[in-house]
Amino acid sequence: MDNSMSDSSESRQQVTITLPDGSERTFPFGVTGLEIASSIGNKLAKAALGFTIDGRPCDLDTPVTRDAAVSIVTFDSPEGKEIFWHSSSHLMAHAIEELFPGAKFGAGPAIEQGFYYDIACEHRFNEDDLRAIEAKMLEISQRNLSITREEMPREQAIEYFANERKDPYKVEILEDTLKEVPTVSVYYQDGFADLCSGPHLPSTGKVKAVLLTNISSSYWRGDSSRETMQRIYGITFPSDKLLKEHVARMEEARKRDHRKLGAELGLFMLTPEVGSGLPIWLPNGAIIRNELETFLKAEQRKRGYVPVYTPHIGNIELYKRSGHYPYYSDSQFPPLTYKDETGREEQYLLKPMNCPHHHLIYSQTLRSYRDLPIRLTEFGTVYRHEQSGELNGLVRARGFTQDDSHIYCRPDQLVDEICNAIDLTRFVFNTLGFDDVETRLSLHDPENQSKYGGTAEVWEQAEKDVKEAADRMGIKYFIGIGEASFYGPKIDFIVRDAIGRKWQLGTVQVDYVMPERFDLSYIGSDGQKHRPVVIHRAPFGSMERFIGVLIEHTAGNFPLWLAPVQVAVLPIAEDVHDYAREVYAKLHAAGIRAELDLRSEKIGKKIREAEVSKIPAMLIIGRNEQEKGEVSLRRHRKGDEGSFGVDELIARLREEIDQRS
Amino acid sequence: MDNSMSDSSESRQQVTITLPDGSERTFPFGVTGLEIASSIGNKLAKAALGFTIDGRPCDLDTPVTRDAAVSIVTFDSPEGKEIFWHSSSHLMAHAIEELFPGAKFGAGPAIEQGFYYDIACEHRFNEDDLRAIEAKMLEISQRNLSITREEMPREQAIEYFANERKDPYKVEILEDTLKEVPTVSVYYQDGFADLCSGPHLPSTGKVKAVLLTNISSSYWRGDSSRETMQRIYGITFPSDKLLKEHVARMEEARKRDHRKLGAELGLFMLTPEVGSGLPIWLPNGAIIRNELETFLKAEQRKRGYVPVYTPHIGNIELYKRSGHYPYYSDSQFPPLTYKDETGREEQYLLKPMNCPHHHLIYSQTLRSYRDLPIRLTEFGTVYRHEQSGELNGLVRARGFTQDDSHIYCRPDQLVDEICNAIDLTRFVFNTLGFDDVETRLSLHDPENQSKYGGTAEVWEQAEKDVKEAADRMGIKYFIGIGEASFYGPKIDFIVRDAIGRKWQLGTVQVDYVMPERFDLSYIGSDGQKHRPVVIHRAPFGSMERFIGVLIEHTAGNFPLWLAPVQVAVLPIAEDVHDYAREVYAKLHAAGIRAELDLRSEKIGKKIREAEVSKIPAMLIIGRNEQEKGEVSLRRHRKGDEGSFGVDELIARLREEIDQRS
Repeated sequence: MDNSMSDSSESRQQVTITLPDGSERTFPFGVTGLEIASSIGNKLAKAALGFTIDGRPCDLDTPVTRDAAVSIVTFDSPEGKEIFWHSSSHLMAHAIEELFPGAKFGAGPAIEQGFYYDIACEHRFNEDDLRAIEAKMLEISQRNLSITREEMPREQAIEYFANERKDPYKVEILEDTLKEVPTVSVYYQDGFADLCSGPHLPSTGKVKAVLLTNISSSYWRGDSSRETMQRIYGITFPSDKLLKEHVARMEEARKRDHRKLGAELGLFMLTPEVGSGLPIWLPNGAIIRNELETFLKAEQRKRGYVPVYTPHIGNIELYKRSGHYPYYSDSQFPPLTYKDETGREEQYLLKPMNCPHHHLIYSQTLRSYRDLPIRLTEFGTVYRHEQSGELNGLVRARGFTQDDSHIYCRPDQLVDEICNAIDLTRFVFNTLGFDDVETRLSLHDPENQSKYGGTAEVWEQAEKDVKEAADRMGIKYFIGIGEASFYGPKIDFIVRDAIGRKWQLGTVQVDYVMPERFDLSYIGSDGQKHRPVVIHRAPFGSMERFIGVLIEHTAGNFPLWLAPVQVAVLPIAEDVHDYAREVYAKLHAAGIRAELDLRSEKIGKKIREAEVSKIPAMLIIGRNEQEKGEVSLRRHRKGDEGSFGVDELIARLREEIDQRS
Repeated sequence: MDNSMSDSSESRQQVTITLPDGSERTFPFGVTGLEIASSIGNKLAKAALGFTIDGRPCDLDTPVTRDAAVSIVTFDSPEGKEIFWHSSSHLMAHAIEELFPGAKFGAGPAIEQGFYYDIACEHRFNEDDLRAIEAKMLEISQRNLSITREEMPREQAIEYFANERKDPYKVEILEDTLKEVPTVSVYYQDGFADLCSGPHLPSTGKVKAVLLTNISSSYWRGDSSRETMQRIYGITFPSDKLLKEHVARMEEARKRDHRKLGAELGLFMLTPEVGSGLPIWLPNGAIIRNELETFLKAEQRKRGYVPVYTPHIGNIELYKRSGHYPYYSDSQFPPLTYKDETGREEQYLLKPMNCPHHHLIYSQTLRSYRDLPIRLTEFGTVYRHEQSGELNGLVRARGFTQDDSHIYCRPDQLVDEICNAIDLTRFVFNTLGFDDVETRLSLHDPENQSKYGGTAEVWEQAEKDVKEAADRMGIKYFIGIGEASFYGPKIDFIVRDAIGRKWQLGTVQVDYVMPERFDLSYIGSDGQKHRPVVIHRAPFGSMERFIGVLIEHTAGNFPLWLAPVQVAVLPIAEDVHDYAREVYAKLHAAGIRAELDLRSEKIGKKIREAEVSKIPAMLIIGRNEQEKGEVSLRRHRKGDEGSFGVDELIARLREEIDQRS
């Protein structure tokens, strides 16, 4: 503790506040967040929902009693949304209490998009109730009730919730979860009160727009042996405009839902006949996946990767050696056990990752320092037993294919190889049109060292290497403490899609731990054995997840090179069918995926259906085109682009495909 | 029966014999095979080992007592080899009896290459014993003992083997296996006798060359609860020259053994750390596999196939529906069983085949008669639990990848589609240099109808369709009764490799059964539901097996397009290293897999090592080449081919690769 005495008398009168832009200001001792915001400007004071003191979120009326870094929190920030939605869950409970006296409340947190509250109530809530609760919430908002915090001894809080509010759930939490805590806080707004650590909005009036979205059921404290509660989900905003934008965004997201588009465009299917979370790629989806694999294979070949193929199962001893089993057995399919002819029992595991197999390949022969780096690559399908509630189409599946490579290199090659892997990942994202990419340096949590393999020294070195590579590549990154893998730090790539949602995709990981466990070595120029370092990397991450995100990003409007059907040949009438067949045959011979629509439908209908199928190019053929040996080109979502000679057009399309533009 | 009375009196004096060339000859009643052979020529009489009467193999001294088709059997035919090797097993037992009195004999059949006999004997046989037995066999051969057959009532045979030969094994067979048979046959050669149905050689003198190869152990009657016996394997020939040729062929086969070459050339590995029978493809092997997959994918795309990808596991109910489980559970990995969060138990099976998954894809949407044929294709890895004794590198593995397609078509399209599948299979074999291909029509065994799914009518139709397609494609085939799959008849392709060995590879199978079990349908032009037919086909069969055979066929001398390293760039001295790097970079940019040998070794050594690595093209670079901007080309196993400009040579190599020549 650095408790300098010199300014202690002065500090009782004033505090020095450092603002986010680095500027310092002096305020009276005990200044509140709202007062600081007002001193900066009225607009900010109006938008302020709370503030942080040295990074810790507080109520806006919390007095500042020491020199500190301060930041005003508005709805624009994640912290602001969390305060807003947390207070909104109180507001909803308040409204329900007024409408349904006797309702009791369990847990009511803010979540990523809004909030929920678990409610114990005789009445079964329905859609009409949601509308009534919304109206009541807005009414309470208009009352603009002050939200106030009171700290009290735990015993006093128990008495208050037991006798005044007759709320058995809060009493249970106070007597159980909080039993070691001497002082707790309670938030009040008029007649409503809730046990809560806060912070909260200054008043109910901040909430201007409300949407309750969903009712589901839950168990008190998530325990299926306890009573069932009704969970109501909602979202709120400080203006109607923001709510409208949210609704539009949700509508857009619903339209882009990869599960919906996956069915409509024949990309993939899921069926309990095979199993939950085990996607089957239908022809249209398989074409996309195949194109992506071919693209990455070619790029990797140029960059010195060599392919391998490994089985989808392995003796369980292999995973004990790697440390994956039994520590990750929760997220693995159970082993399959059999006795061979001699009665000897063996256990096999569906491989949850490809690494151990690749390490065996590395170690099957003596390696020299001259052989390194060795870059093994495989589209390796792995199986992990995700909880059924977490499954989500292609994006979260139980069987998925990683574009997995392991690079074995000397320590002196490591930073170069991380840079190469970053470069490849960026190249892949650029080609696929993900321009908005955030990078997270996922480091280990030193306070939880036992979660990780390897010594503190090894971790220090690995994190230094990763940072050096990220810096050299000019990457702007943020740090994620505790986000590392158990064997090493990672660089994770998080893309923002066309409607602003973030998805974690590619990864580059450094590993000093597995080389120890698998006793990997190479003979150095000194003739001695040395330990290589391993980089695990996957630009796509998983083919399933990547394509799932790509579907939502493009809304199914794939670029020409990826489109399952690239060209629709649409003759206007039967008299040009032969010419249309000729055009189709030429496209097929040029390796362009084409469809020929010979139905006796009107051309308008044919075009409409091709647009619905999101086919990038439509070639419309009438008598005029036939006479000139041409076709009329119409591009999906763009319209007519004029007439072209057949060979010229094929060359143009072929180039667009080959360029992957 | 056509038993015309007119020639019955004459037939007691004479028989009419039809020879294989269709000619007829008249012989005295009771003429023997040897007499018929002699009448044709002395050479044939000398080579004759037995003969067939209306297709039934007989001893050479069997009298012909009716008009019949007769064929003289020599060592050149499979029937001749079987007689020769069966008699040789008796000869070996005879020799062992003389050398080791008290030895008793179990089973002693001819096998595909030679014969074995199971022996019960106190003495443990060793390599020296094998040499002594060989010498004794040749000595007995030189005695030129007549081999004679005697038929007797079973009771008399029991008495003979119990009291005279004191042979408990033959007595057990007579009392057990043969207990319903009234008359049995015994073969004698001097003091040795064996219970045997024959036929056999006329005398021991026919056996001129002997090689005993191996000793292993076995159980009496294959039952592990009975006594252990010693099994001695051997092979014999009617001349020393044939034995020498056999030994040379074995030596050649040993050199080509894909397990040996697989290790030497870095193609694949097997390790108990992953599991028996689970090959891991090392980079060089993975390149070959990848090239073959790319080749077939492109060819299939041209022919209207569409890709799919399916998981490697499936709910066990799927395999109960298909009928694969539990009937094939012997050859499957056991199911993996788990309870989900709700405590519900589920079982998954590692997929032993891809068909059920593909059938689900077919049936996931309504199909119209206009949509058919639908040709789904996948490189699908399947897992089957072969007995560990049957595993053999890539050729017989527990995990392997089928180039699997299922073609769903209308009955009126079936024969065309079988023809297309045959055509593709031939194209694949031709491209890969398998010119000598036999075709088997694998039909069901009507005497064992219960082994198969589907009605007799369905089988009749399916076998008619398969024959019609084979005929239309001008295929010369032979029939294999009982070789069909349980769901339908097959066309199996059996290739003969460069040293004459046969391997079953590709297959085309017709299936009317699974469409019933999976309730597959399409809407016909009549608006009604109809049942499609399914063709299962795989030109390679399994990537593992095909490449295993290809390694043995080519002895690892892969054509340029498949070679893992296509070109070795070999600078003669350090002063041309920069130029060599330039050449290497140009090759790499042209997509040619090249290796650059910058070691300070003599050029002779570099060439030798490239030859050992079976690299198809070596580019030798000295000062002379550098000055002219050329390289000297040397082809593997062919030698120097002169100098070329670099770009010209790259264009030549590129063309050879693209043509897959």
